[in-house]
Amino acid sequence: MSIHIPHGFRFAGVHCGIKRNRDKPDLTLVVADRPVTAAGVYTQNRICAAPVQWDRQQTPNGHTRAVVINSGNANACTGPQGLEDAKSMCALAAEACQLSSEGVLVMSTGIIGQPLPMEKIAAGITAAAGQLAADQPAVQDAARGIMTTDTVPKWASRALELPGKTVRLLGLAKGAGMIGPQMATMLGLIVTDAALAPDAAQEMLADVCDQTFNCISVEGHTSTNDTVILLASGAAAAEPLSGPDRQAFHTVLLDLCAQLARSIPADGEGATHLITIDVRGCQQPADARRIARSVANSPLVKTAIAGGDPNWGRIVSAAGYAGVEFDADQVDLEINGYAVYRQGAPLAFDAAEVSGSIRAQRETSIELSVGRGPAAARFWTTDLTAEYVQINADYHT
Amino acid sequence: MSIHIPHGFRFAGVHCGIKRNRDKPDLTLVVADRPVTAAGVYTQNRICAAPVQWDRQQTPNGHTRAVVINSGNANACTGPQGLEDAKSMCALAAEACQLSSEGVLVMSTGIIGQPLPMEKIAAGITAAAGQLAADQPAVQDAARGIMTTDTVPKWASRALELPGKTVRLLGLAKGAGMIGPQMATMLGLIVTDAALAPDAAQEMLADVCDQTFNCISVEGHTSTNDTVILLASGAAAAEPLSGPDRQAFHTVLLDLCAQLARSIPADGEGATHLITIDVRGCQQPADARRIARSVANSPLVKTAIAGGDPNWGRIVSAAGYAGVEFDADQVDLEINGYAVYRQGAPLAFDAAEVSGSIRAQRETSIELSVGRGPAAARFWTTDLTAEYVQINADYHT
Repeated sequence: MSIHIPHGFRFAGVHCGIKRNRDKPDLTLVVADRPVTAAGVYTQNRICAAPVQWDRQQTPNGHTRAVVINSGNANACTGPQGLEDAKSMCALAAEACQLSSEGVLVMSTGIIGQPLPMEKIAAGITAAAGQLAADQPAVQDAARGIMTTDTVPKWASRALELPGKTVRLLGLAKGAGMIGPQMATMLGLIVTDAALAPDAAQEMLADVCDQTFNCISVEGHTSTNDTVILLASGAAAAEPLSGPDRQAFHTVLLDLCAQLARSIPADGEGATHLITIDVRGCQQPADARRIARSVANSPLVKTAIAGGDPNWGRIVSAAGYAGVEFDADQVDLEINGYAVYRQGAPLAFDAAEVSGSIRAQRETSIELSVGRGPAAARFWTTDLTAEYVQINADYHT
Repeated sequence: MSIHIPHGFRFAGVHCGIKRNRDKPDLTLVVADRPVTAAGVYTQNRICAAPVQWDRQQTPNGHTRAVVINSGNANACTGPQGLEDAKSMCALAAEACQLSSEGVLVMSTGIIGQPLPMEKIAAGITAAAGQLAADQPAVQDAARGIMTTDTVPKWASRALELPGKTVRLLGLAKGAGMIGPQMATMLGLIVTDAALAPDAAQEMLADVCDQTFNCISVEGHTSTNDTVILLASGAAAAEPLSGPDRQAFHTVLLDLCAQLARSIPADGEGATHLITIDVRGCQQPADARRIARSVANSPLVKTAIAGGDPNWGRIVSAAGYAGVEFDADQVDLEINGYAVYRQGAPLAFDAAEVSGSIRAQRETSIELSVGRGPAAARFWTTDLTAEYVQINADYHT
């Protein structure tokens, strides 16, 4: 699969020693040739990590030059020293690339409550700055440098043909369908050579995250470090997108982020099913998301799918306590395309056949309709297996 | 342990054939000698069972005579027939005891989506009406008649000495620390020979449930059938309680319900720890409960405790996304009395010692302080073990 690399950016991923395994990069640097537009969406957790505190103050803006990311240490719950270290990472990246440190954003992911090993990070930043490139191997190194419990690097790209120009989008993400000690932080970095005004970029990113990265759930935890950054260089065309071009870009950004978001629960060590939950018939998209989230976070639903059990009762019950008003007599449910519940009452269905369908496939589809409203949402989660619990219980501090 | 049986009530529990095992009672009847005050607190699930729909219309009132309860079938998601069947249960109980059917409340718990076996239930009601008694064996049969996955019957009683009179409180409850196919419905029935006006009984019961039965969580599911009923006969003294007497009664009711509520997660087949979560320093009790519930529902926290892992990061992070405003720098945390986090930063502690303390005891204490506000809450939950998941995944419809 060829990769569309947006113009105006260079990438590197190196091993600097935060992770023990020398084959695993743990520091990623992405540098723009010129100041670019930056937008950010961050964790809503009251306990947020130092890099989130820093970046949140910096975005949206029109003068970002670089993003530096380390994996293996989240720089969370690290007090005033943590914020100093986050700023130092930016300053070191700026120095290594001869930029102003106000133009650098930072992300961290990994264990929490431990001070960053700043000597290793400083050496890593210098090494990464010397390896920056705009080719596919560099992008792949960058994607690997942000991994924690991920089993595969996650990236996706798109080329969008607009009248008179081609713009490219490239996204890197990390986060896995199980959590290890690292608490399942989700990081995303989207770069594009389209031109976007800062406020437009922020608005678009927030909307897209609501429908993608905020629609995945593995264990219902919101991490201290969750961050998605969008950088727009304008190298493809200097004029900020507007009208139908902007709309087309928005659609492609949504599609790209949906692919990345879905890849997170899909990377489920300890999980045996990727579950897609579609909720329809609500008055507001936020209502549909609340219901979908309630189903996605239900251990009862997740264990049922792990066991191949088409347990409609657990699903409609989880919808019922989502805190959204709906008429119980209007509820329809399909599991893997089999109608199992209609107009508020269970249907006769061949449980063995539906169970076989769940067992035979890695993906499970839950489609729930709760009324006649126009709003819908799609959510992705994993099942809950005994192996998952074992993995999470067997880690000791 | 002797039992305080409130005057003015008789009890029975019989096997009528809803459960396969003939040794397990599945129908309970509690009858008052005269009209009594009834209050009720019900599930907030939009999908609520037929008996909940019926009882919700009937309480609070001052003319209840009986409560009939079956286990093994929840009469939930059963459509119009379900509501007819719930009313029929009341009519059958009224007929068997020569009462008006307006004076009968009903509860059901068990599998959902299946019509009630009304012939068996009718026979059971007749049999139970013939066995009503006001002694300890009858109370124990009644407690056993409402069990589903419970491994032990749950009841508790108190005698309260007030000036010039003794009043008694007796509570029966069901619900277990794991869920089986029955989706963990919680039922509670409290009877007392104190006199209470209907509105006062309702207000007191709602307040007490907020601090007890609404402060337990096993898998975060709110069932379709959750119900707590309070009946007050006034047989000990006809004058409704007021002033200090009412306050003293309120305190004892809270204590009784806390014991019953706690016994539900404690009855944890598949769980190895009962976790008590105390949250302090909030502005409002509801805020403290939201934080405690967020920690209690976190699979990451629950798997950590199962593994004997004093993982403070998972606990403070779960507090952080509860949706309650607090200052991250004010957070203190103790696990089993060991201070592990203070003023927003991790403390050095002997992880092996704290881990050993978790492993050595069936109960784990989590104490979280998030500021200097006056409000606190206590919550109970279980850990999450691989065995729990196995039990829940291996049931098939």
